[in-house]
Amino acid sequence: METQDTMNGAESLVKTLLACGVDTCFANPGTSEMHFVAALDRIPGMRCVLGLFEGVVTGAADGYARMAEKPAATLLHCGPGLANGLANLHNARRAQTPVVNIIGDQATYHRPLDAPLTADTEGWARPVSVWTRTATHAATVGADAASAVQAALGAPGGVASLILPSDVCWDAGGKVAAPLPALPVPKVSPDAVQNAARLLRSGQPTLVVLAGAALREGALADAHRIAAATDARLITPMSNSRVTRGQGRLAVDRIPYSGDAARQKLAGIRNVILVGATTPATFFAYPGKSARPFPEDAVIHVLARPEEDLGEALARLADELGAGAAPLPAGQGAPVQAARGAITSEAVAQSLTALLPEQAVVVEESVSFGRAFYPGTVHAAPHDWLQLTGGAIGAGLPLATGAAIAAPDRRVVALQADGSGMYTLQALWTMAREKLDVTVVLLANRKYAILLGELAGVGANPGKTALDMLDIGNPDLDWVKLANGMGVEAARAETMEAFNDLFQGANQRKGPFLIELVI
Amino acid sequence: METQDTMNGAESLVKTLLACGVDTCFANPGTSEMHFVAALDRIPGMRCVLGLFEGVVTGAADGYARMAEKPAATLLHCGPGLANGLANLHNARRAQTPVVNIIGDQATYHRPLDAPLTADTEGWARPVSVWTRTATHAATVGADAASAVQAALGAPGGVASLILPSDVCWDAGGKVAAPLPALPVPKVSPDAVQNAARLLRSGQPTLVVLAGAALREGALADAHRIAAATDARLITPMSNSRVTRGQGRLAVDRIPYSGDAARQKLAGIRNVILVGATTPATFFAYPGKSARPFPEDAVIHVLARPEEDLGEALARLADELGAGAAPLPAGQGAPVQAARGAITSEAVAQSLTALLPEQAVVVEESVSFGRAFYPGTVHAAPHDWLQLTGGAIGAGLPLATGAAIAAPDRRVVALQADGSGMYTLQALWTMAREKLDVTVVLLANRKYAILLGELAGVGANPGKTALDMLDIGNPDLDWVKLANGMGVEAARAETMEAFNDLFQGANQRKGPFLIELVI
Repeated sequence: METQDTMNGAESLVKTLLACGVDTCFANPGTSEMHFVAALDRIPGMRCVLGLFEGVVTGAADGYARMAEKPAATLLHCGPGLANGLANLHNARRAQTPVVNIIGDQATYHRPLDAPLTADTEGWARPVSVWTRTATHAATVGADAASAVQAALGAPGGVASLILPSDVCWDAGGKVAAPLPALPVPKVSPDAVQNAARLLRSGQPTLVVLAGAALREGALADAHRIAAATDARLITPMSNSRVTRGQGRLAVDRIPYSGDAARQKLAGIRNVILVGATTPATFFAYPGKSARPFPEDAVIHVLARPEEDLGEALARLADELGAGAAPLPAGQGAPVQAARGAITSEAVAQSLTALLPEQAVVVEESVSFGRAFYPGTVHAAPHDWLQLTGGAIGAGLPLATGAAIAAPDRRVVALQADGSGMYTLQALWTMAREKLDVTVVLLANRKYAILLGELAGVGANPGKTALDMLDIGNPDLDWVKLANGMGVEAARAETMEAFNDLFQGANQRKGPFLIELVI
Repeated sequence: METQDTMNGAESLVKTLLACGVDTCFANPGTSEMHFVAALDRIPGMRCVLGLFEGVVTGAADGYARMAEKPAATLLHCGPGLANGLANLHNARRAQTPVVNIIGDQATYHRPLDAPLTADTEGWARPVSVWTRTATHAATVGADAASAVQAALGAPGGVASLILPSDVCWDAGGKVAAPLPALPVPKVSPDAVQNAARLLRSGQPTLVVLAGAALREGALADAHRIAAATDARLITPMSNSRVTRGQGRLAVDRIPYSGDAARQKLAGIRNVILVGATTPATFFAYPGKSARPFPEDAVIHVLARPEEDLGEALARLADELGAGAAPLPAGQGAPVQAARGAITSEAVAQSLTALLPEQAVVVEESVSFGRAFYPGTVHAAPHDWLQLTGGAIGAGLPLATGAAIAAPDRRVVALQADGSGMYTLQALWTMAREKLDVTVVLLANRKYAILLGELAGVGANPGKTALDMLDIGNPDLDWVKLANGMGVEAARAETMEAFNDLFQGANQRKGPFLIELVI
């Protein structure tokens, strides 16, 4: 524990974060954070990345930690700045992403005056956070920061929100805190392993739902051993934080978004074994329909809870089953050719399979047009696949921004629908400023396509009012101009040939490029 | 009370809103709102205005009600959709604007399944709301809506948040509720009137702080009578919801943003009389400085609380003082000429004075470069002036959007800084779609200028890290392209002559136009 009487709270906070391994800060600062900004300025070692809107900041922190496997800090301005970042913190919460979420706020003694920006900062932070604290003294804010990092990294990971009154920053007496030890990861129960083995040996149709850390390369290899030795059907939730996949890796289907399609696909399942997943449910309820994506009478079992060691659980289950090594199929023989002609979901998936750079990081936010992307790219070069996890649209471009900061040697490919892209389009500016190697494939269908399907499901014969509320094509958005306006080069593709050329060119250049794919 | 067994909850909600005079809905709907969308489609009378981001929706509802003097409805999608709209709801709360804030959410029985979008919707809504309720049954959602309208309109006005589970919408048995009577407005205490009169007769330097409804034409005329009959100094808070001003109207200064400047301006004040205002405080605390914008020993008195009848309070005080009619100075003699040459804050104010259309609605969000706009335009043609009230930046373009919907016969002029404009730039698309008569004057200084001043106040000699976090000019934003990308015509001005030409042209056209003023 270092003590320096001349150090203020903000300096002790920055030094503690660095000591805890947090060296990247996504920021949208305001007046109450100026002492923190000044401390970042004086103390070397923290990479500060500016976002022009807080949803960019929080989504980038999510994308960063998914790839870096350690948290970034955010810097947000008061309750309303936090509020602007909440939707992507909700997604980070659902992704179980570690984030050290720092929110500057009114000085402790100014707060009772109810100045214009005063808001219920803690109340807004708590629902997305595994840990929430308002710092009270310069002497303890270093220790608060060390606790926040520890809490964010506690299995399975989450958002730790530290509210930072400005006087806590500027007061003298800051003390740098040492990193706290990692919180223990609970061991999987031997009973749970034996129960799962018994089910898998029973011959009953059994679904194994893999989520979170079970979707990484080593854990997937053990899941493959299990499936090869039994009749287990492996599946993942519809939305996942990060999946390692592509040639030479196990391809696992996702539970379909549509409950009807899911129940059809999973008809006959008798047992469901959860590995890091919570009990799957459809995104929404529909009148007279089940919320379960599998048969009503299937029995739920837990091999491992999200906070347990999922890799160990799968390895032990495979051993219990006596499952031997199960080689994965080698890569496809002849390379897939990029698709030609009309732009379809399947054609884009085919071109991605042919052209995706080795070790790309794919960020997908396209529920409707993107239906073929995930199943259609299992034979692409090895890559990671990141998704919107909490349904709060506007995650894609920020996730891509953060992933590119965390993985500067890999190409990031953002497959981004236009409706959701508009929520956080300011991320393009950060990509330009930081010269990030991101290829944005902007899927311009000029409507909220998923909602048109939902409206049809309501049984309505939609009139002008309804159609207008789901149509974002009047006027058409021009994404080439929007990207250029924020310093990102861009071009439009109206055929697969044009897309293939632009995509290959984009992936070979330094810095970001946006392809507006008119679909 | 109309009952129709075939009516679903959503239909009863729409019909109740219309019966209560709510006929405009700013919307960003999602899956859980499809039955509400279908009801809007079937039932004529509601104008639905789509925003491509929820901050546009809530800010537009604020701007609309400031001009229409009645609430609009919003339509937001689940907790995260609400979260995206919270910052501008915070501003609406500070403006005391009536808003019927409708948030679609998971079906009552789906909520316990904790599907991806499930969040603490009520917990997020409560801090910005005067009234919060989660509807529970189709049979009562009409009555819930009538209560929400009543609560939103209760003096001084506020956000009423109604959370709408999807099954409450689709279930049959909806009942249209009759409008509820307006809540009573408390009368001003005779003691408070006599106390204020005594203070004003005492000869002690006395400040009268006018806020809220005291800033409208009739109330200001009575305030002018009071000031003319006594030595009262009139002032308003720095940020106000709506002020009627311009030629032939009383010009009232605002309390300066800077505490130092405010204390200098208000030195010697002994009494402060609040008329609809809360006790003024500086936006932020600064080390070793007072949070009061007036002398520490000044005594605070209340003539009327925000929820009381402020116009009546001023009229009765004027009568108590025996203050006669006080004619306002007529308009200036020779018309002011538009400014020429270099672009400065004062030059822009001069051109606005010369060129502002009669009965324009000015929306101002420019704390740094805009310093001269308000004082420098007191002799412009009669107009209303709307401001960011809660300090949550990103209000301006949405406020202008909503004001233009509410006041289609008046030109809206948005004086918008670039940094804050980026938070909710999606509003430009709604302006284009709805062909709103808005002239956006986009002030491009390409930095967070206010923060550079604040950083200097911290005493730091800023280095690259700090400067980079306050500089939004690398790369430069191109607002002409950003506007064009969303269907709004635009041009750049680098001299006052060019600005004057573009401003006059813009104000004469139908539909929106953006002028990027490089400053």
